[in-house]
Amino acid sequence: MRAAVLHAPGDVRVEEIGDPTITAPTDAVIRVSAACVCGSDLWPYRGTEPIQAPMPMGHEYVGVVEEVGSDVRTVRPGQFVVGTFVAADGTCEICRSGYPSSCVNRVFMAQVGTQSERARIPHADGTLVATPGTPEEDLIPHLLAASDVLGTGWFGAVAAEAGPGKTVAVVGDGAVGLHAVLAARQLGAERIIAVSRHEPRQKLAREFGATDVVTARGDEGVAAIKELTGGLGAHSVVEAVGTQQSMQQAIRSTRPGGHLGFVGVNHDVTLSGEELFFSQIHLHGGPAPVRRFLPELIDLIWQRKIHPGKVFDLTLPLDRAAEAYRAMDERRAIKALLRV
Amino acid sequence: MRAAVLHAPGDVRVEEIGDPTITAPTDAVIRVSAACVCGSDLWPYRGTEPIQAPMPMGHEYVGVVEEVGSDVRTVRPGQFVVGTFVAADGTCEICRSGYPSSCVNRVFMAQVGTQSERARIPHADGTLVATPGTPEEDLIPHLLAASDVLGTGWFGAVAAEAGPGKTVAVVGDGAVGLHAVLAARQLGAERIIAVSRHEPRQKLAREFGATDVVTARGDEGVAAIKELTGGLGAHSVVEAVGTQQSMQQAIRSTRPGGHLGFVGVNHDVTLSGEELFFSQIHLHGGPAPVRRFLPELIDLIWQRKIHPGKVFDLTLPLDRAAEAYRAMDERRAIKALLRV
Repeated sequence: MRAAVLHAPGDVRVEEIGDPTITAPTDAVIRVSAACVCGSDLWPYRGTEPIQAPMPMGHEYVGVVEEVGSDVRTVRPGQFVVGTFVAADGTCEICRSGYPSSCVNRVFMAQVGTQSERARIPHADGTLVATPGTPEEDLIPHLLAASDVLGTGWFGAVAAEAGPGKTVAVVGDGAVGLHAVLAARQLGAERIIAVSRHEPRQKLAREFGATDVVTARGDEGVAAIKELTGGLGAHSVVEAVGTQQSMQQAIRSTRPGGHLGFVGVNHDVTLSGEELFFSQIHLHGGPAPVRRFLPELIDLIWQRKIHPGKVFDLTLPLDRAAEAYRAMDERRAIKALLRV
Repeated sequence: MRAAVLHAPGDVRVEEIGDPTITAPTDAVIRVSAACVCGSDLWPYRGTEPIQAPMPMGHEYVGVVEEVGSDVRTVRPGQFVVGTFVAADGTCEICRSGYPSSCVNRVFMAQVGTQSERARIPHADGTLVATPGTPEEDLIPHLLAASDVLGTGWFGAVAAEAGPGKTVAVVGDGAVGLHAVLAARQLGAERIIAVSRHEPRQKLAREFGATDVVTARGDEGVAAIKELTGGLGAHSVVEAVGTQQSMQQAIRSTRPGGHLGFVGVNHDVTLSGEELFFSQIHLHGGPAPVRRFLPELIDLIWQRKIHPGKVFDLTLPLDRAAEAYRAMDERRAIKALLRV
């Protein structure tokens, strides 16, 4: 089958690799309908994260089940499924407590690769959720978004305890940040401040529910958010970047007793214990437990109540994956969808 | 009046200073019945924290109201009161949300000093809580504990979401850690693991409700806690020291999705964003909002249901404050009470 493979920083090629097969009775093999390029794919692409090349890429996917192992109970061949970016057994104590992304038997799908014609999905029962039927074509991007970026933004908003009466600030205007805005709106937040300096992203943030836009970053961004919140900071802040500057901005934008949901994968970030102590904020984040939210997200999408797929502003066939990576890397695209 | 004053690291003297007076209509002046030496007093005493000598010491206190300003409504002269270690107005948005220790008008009592015959208490209404009557002599140490160490340990356990069905680990066997054990028991925790290598403190931890004791520190301590919790870590961890090692032990002892309440004042602690991200824990702490818990704590003490004053294993008159500091510094005493 054909798959996007990273050979070296900046060098993604679509080439033939071996077909996936069922290797454990809990596996499924799916035919991928659509995959996409994630902000976190750019870390190895940019060489910021060490790579073991050649490395099959991708961890976001929707598709049709082709084959299941003998222990799989909840999905069957022919069903259209949305999968999560971490495969989880669904049965361990951590999964049952709502944290499948920290499952004791988890497999990061990024280590498997889903920017390909087919994919093996470990722990199919804990990882895949079938849609109510075969989706109409226009629903596919929205469902694909649920696989990671929507689920991750949603978790950020939940971890930040966005809800009625709350002012929510979102640091980061990538797909995850924009979906955190959407989630905060769905969760009933009163006011939603998007931090963005890119006009098209600001526009989408407003469409998703942002009431205010702050363009400043760092300490100036903090000051702007404080000015909008009576000098106190936001009740809820979602961090959706993962850099030192964005984490600091997010921490300092949260009021004492407030909640910071951090879902940008942290890279080389160092936090001061003293600052966290005296900030008196709640901090929670990590790889999003998307499986917890997936049934609800699929339902909202199926009913056409939310349209998260609007973050895809570039659609290309799988064979042109290299172009998709370049566009994301150069920030010409918010998020690129790959049709398979 | 006489007061304990720090002149230089290791040099505490009890000497005459000016009597406190009402300086704002929200002030009260109290006659201090008892004060004590806190683990956090040892930071400037040891020179770890810069001092502006001479510096009146202390921030824990109980006593009798002598005089109140014209705006004070909830306490009156003659009442016995327990005060919190942060004075708070009780009316700002942060106070009303349950975080008086981050009040926008807060005054750290450590900047005022309470190891003295009298003390001026700013924001009396938001800071002092009157007991139901004049306490019997034997209740005074228990009430004094509520002023900081009990309230702080209690907040740690609340921030760690200690409760029924939970396994709670407490890192630190000072007064705050021991009170976190007591709080976890009161909050209904199923299993309470105290981390302590000092036999008398282990004994008190067990008396307060610890079901297990771990003596190892650092990564060995983490391994010991994991072994007691099916390899997962505790649901709830309270950090009550504030050093790099204890914070790391606490983070690594918390299971994914679990809660870490950190109440040891952090000094020179650096946390890895990556580690926090992938740990997927909840982190919350800071200076404890003791005022939130004080009515309940006073009630439990008044009914003799809890005996937090047992942490005082050294009682001296105020004039011998220097001895009390030395005993705490050398870990000969868990906590020293000063009778005034």
